[in-house]
Amino acid sequence: MKKSNYIEKLKKILGTEKVKDSTSWRLSYAYDGTPTGYKGVPDVVVFPEDEEDVAKVLAFANENRIPVYPRGAGSGLTGGSAPLEGGIVVSTEKMNRIIEIDEDNLAVLTEPGVVTYELQKEVEKRGLFYPPDPSSYKYSTIGGNIAENAGGPRCVKYGVTKDYVMQLEVVFADGTISKVGSKAVKSVAGYNLKDLIVGSEGTLAFITKAYLKLIPSPEAVRTAMAVFPKVEQAAQAVADMFKNKVIPTACEFLDKNSIVAVENYAKIGLPTYAEGLLVIEVDGYEAVVDELINRVIKVCKEAGAEEIKRASTPEEREAIWLARRAVSPAIVQLKPKKINEDVVVPRNKIPEMIKNVYKIADKYNLMVVNFGHAGDGNIHVNFMYEPEEEERVEMAVREVFELTLSLEGSISGEHGIGWMKKEFLPLEVGEALEKMKAIKKALDPNNILNPGKIFDL
Amino acid sequence: MKKSNYIEKLKKILGTEKVKDSTSWRLSYAYDGTPTGYKGVPDVVVFPEDEEDVAKVLAFANENRIPVYPRGAGSGLTGGSAPLEGGIVVSTEKMNRIIEIDEDNLAVLTEPGVVTYELQKEVEKRGLFYPPDPSSYKYSTIGGNIAENAGGPRCVKYGVTKDYVMQLEVVFADGTISKVGSKAVKSVAGYNLKDLIVGSEGTLAFITKAYLKLIPSPEAVRTAMAVFPKVEQAAQAVADMFKNKVIPTACEFLDKNSIVAVENYAKIGLPTYAEGLLVIEVDGYEAVVDELINRVIKVCKEAGAEEIKRASTPEEREAIWLARRAVSPAIVQLKPKKINEDVVVPRNKIPEMIKNVYKIADKYNLMVVNFGHAGDGNIHVNFMYEPEEEERVEMAVREVFELTLSLEGSISGEHGIGWMKKEFLPLEVGEALEKMKAIKKALDPNNILNPGKIFDL
Ligand SMILES: Cc1cc2nc3c(=O)[nH]c(=O)nc-3n(C[C@H](O)[C@H](O)[C@H](O)COP(=O)(O)OP(=O)(O)OC[C@H]3O[C@@H](n4cnc5c(N)ncnc54)[C@H](O)[C@@H]3O)c2cc1C
Ligand SMILES: Cc1cc2nc3c(=O)[nH]c(=O)nc-3n(C[C@H](O)[C@H](O)[C@H](O)COP(=O)(O)OP(=O)(O)OC[C@H]3O[C@@H](n4cnc5c(N)ncnc54)[C@H](O)[C@@H]3O)c2cc1C
Repeated sequence: MKKSNYIEKLKKILGTEKVKDSTSWRLSYAYDGTPTGYKGVPDVVVFPEDEEDVAKVLAFANENRIPVYPRGAGSGLTGGSAPLEGGIVVSTEKMNRIIEIDEDNLAVLTEPGVVTYELQKEVEKRGLFYPPDPSSYKYSTIGGNIAENAGGPRCVKYGVTKDYVMQLEVVFADGTISKVGSKAVKSVAGYNLKDLIVGSEGTLAFITKAYLKLIPSPEAVRTAMAVFPKVEQAAQAVADMFKNKVIPTACEFLDKNSIVAVENYAKIGLPTYAEGLLVIEVDGYEAVVDELINRVIKVCKEAGAEEIKRASTPEEREAIWLARRAVSPAIVQLKPKKINEDVVVPRNKIPEMIKNVYKIADKYNLMVVNFGHAGDGNIHVNFMYEPEEEERVEMAVREVFELTLSLEGSISGEHGIGWMKKEFLPLEVGEALEKMKAIKKALDPNNILNPGKIFDL
Repeated sequence: MKKSNYIEKLKKILGTEKVKDSTSWRLSYAYDGTPTGYKGVPDVVVFPEDEEDVAKVLAFANENRIPVYPRGAGSGLTGGSAPLEGGIVVSTEKMNRIIEIDEDNLAVLTEPGVVTYELQKEVEKRGLFYPPDPSSYKYSTIGGNIAENAGGPRCVKYGVTKDYVMQLEVVFADGTISKVGSKAVKSVAGYNLKDLIVGSEGTLAFITKAYLKLIPSPEAVRTAMAVFPKVEQAAQAVADMFKNKVIPTACEFLDKNSIVAVENYAKIGLPTYAEGLLVIEVDGYEAVVDELINRVIKVCKEAGAEEIKRASTPEEREAIWLARRAVSPAIVQLKPKKINEDVVVPRNKIPEMIKNVYKIADKYNLMVVNFGHAGDGNIHVNFMYEPEEEERVEMAVREVFELTLSLEGSISGEHGIGWMKKEFLPLEVGEALEKMKAIKKALDPNNILNPGKIFDL
């Protein structure tokens, strides 16, 4: 169908106010958070208000073989929502209601366009807690979080988004509206489509509602920071926390280059000789958090920490977190360009990972900064570079992925594949890629849902 | 290919000692734990020793369109391992090694034929804990637990089998050996095949190795029992525990008929007027378990419990658990036949569920006993009957499923669909069934892997 014809049809189907095709609208929805900029411009942007609207758009697109790009806040870092081949961007902006907070069953039913932070605030008013906390939580949407299976610092203790999705209402490529998963805590009735769709980056189904598990808010929290002369010592401390039965709520790591960058930027008195810094937080019952943070401190000392700070007031807690939070703003001062790979390795492989990343950076004469969620083994490897260094960066990134996989890790802990990493996916999943493609073809035979993402067919 | 020919071929492929086709072997592997008895007899039983063996069998079966039935301990309750159409039973009995306990990363790599209890004992020696605890744990296998996504009493706090599977080595129907999931704590690289295969009852892939997450063993445990005049009071107590920030390790429920049956059988002094009994256990740090059990007791009192026991010694703990453990042996005394449906509803729907199950039992003039995992809303509804009552039982079961679904529950919390429940699956999953079938066809185009289970194609 001709582009102008199909847009007219869409306006008939949805009503004109939900269909935007002016250049300014189209350009605004070409971008997402991916540092490389835009890849393509959509023909049209639509704003469905409910699952029926979404079903109409998908059925129409499926019949006419028009690509559809689901979109939340567009904060994705791997180009997940990028409209590569024209087509229709389907935004969830108007599907932004929290439908029900079910205090008896500790759950919330929500539309996908709700911002993560808004949902967290609402449930906290009732003493409840929705743990998944991607750093983008102040603007990312629940739908985007689910489609990417987003994680964050708290995931070491509380798990990732997937662990909180009980049931989804989804629209499949052919316009079928279905529920997958269950409102019951357990269910083994048929295939687990729910966990297949979570993390599928909008390529298998469009999420129109989510029933999310909540937990009681923790009663208390304790925070500490420890500085280690050697990166192995920091890694040892992390392993020993677990051995001492402490699963920290957060266990964030900064390498030497991060520490130096933060110190230069924020002047908070960090010892720039140190190879590793940990920010550790524990939470739980009032009766136990002091003991837990004491165990953490003991373990850090024994592992060789030279400086340990423990927060006694909310202000001191903020001061400790500043070291971690300042990393991103600090490092962008270092060079005009940055590429951030969120690789993840088994926890005990962190020292080997860091050492070898330095070697790779040396080899290509690049600046690298490593930090991230040490409790998960999820290290953000950031190459900081001048535009003319791009080619070397690309070679270095490939070696980082190869290194990660040789350490039995994964090329993405949080950010997904999108179009950015799809050339690397076969390195990790091998022949299983063919099975993934078979599933995609089974659920979306006309390849209309977010085509060109994760892999090419 | 003719049966005798193909068995000869199999012997060539695997070696004769791994292939058994005498009548006694075949009959021994026709049965599983399903109360209805056997449904079909396999042509042959094979005992692969590693993934290569499994791959050879599957590739051969796939080429020759011979059904393959994966089998662990055969303790399934819905006929999952039943060889419906002759074919090859593939037993994991010889794949029963624990390969490595990784204390640094809190994980264990195991073959699928290891018995759940053996694995638990081994990791406990190192202060580690593998929580999933189906009541069959003393004989069920890890492979069978994964294929069924098994759960148990501890799952209310610790989650089900799925929550502990990090990576699987699997063989697909065409003989491809692949790893799915990751040894890293998080991974969002490509589709989540791992969680699709967990719970797929051997219909999508054969599991040949599992890398399972462990956690530190809890330091301490406390146990209590509470008896309630009204079932609503018991349900209220359960909801209030969560509101008081206590997630119990176990929260088991007995209804009036269970209490009476146990009392008649074991004479342990249970008050037979009571409509509900809870066995509650909490675990965690030494510093906090007493406070937690006190909160539980307070909540139970406030909800109207008339009798509360708290265990102070291991013996008293055993005595409390006896009430729960005696249910199964007690109720089989009541009538010669039993059908056990493990339906699950949102936690706050338990009273409505129980009341209406009684109505259904009255309508069909049947004896019913309800007990199970109240913390999960997972109630085992047991109709006890004489052989001649079978027809009425079937009608009652259908109504129980309809009731469950009207309360937004699931027809199976733990036991899976197998062949036993496949006629009811469409009631729960609706049109998503077609998507499940599409996935099955995509991954197993010749329908050789456990055909006739979950659904018919
Ligand atoms: C500064 C910054 C920090 C970040 N930190 C983290 C972090 O700590 N952890 C982390 O995991 N990520 C992080 N991210 C990445 C990003 O924010 C997450 O992936 C987030 O989940 C995306 O949500 P979104 O609403 O912006 O989705 P979008 O970017 O709009 O879309 C992301 C993907 O989801 C799909 N999608 C969106 N809505 C739906 C729907 N309703 N149905 C089906 N598919 C849908 C899109 O097609 C796309 O493939 C960060 C990003 C930024 C910019
Ligand atoms: C007394 C009793 C109590 C029980 N209590 C519980 C309970 O509390 N919770 C619960 O969840 N279940 C319970 N069950 C059911 C049963 O024990 C579980 O489903 C268990 O997980 C089955 O394990 P198994 O090794 O016996 O598997 P099997 O019965 O041999 O097989 C079960 C399914 O798994 C498949 N399978 C087995 N191995 C593999 C493999 N390696 N790869 C692929 N597929 C495979 C089979 O094809 C079949 O579909 C109980 C059963 C009994 C008899």
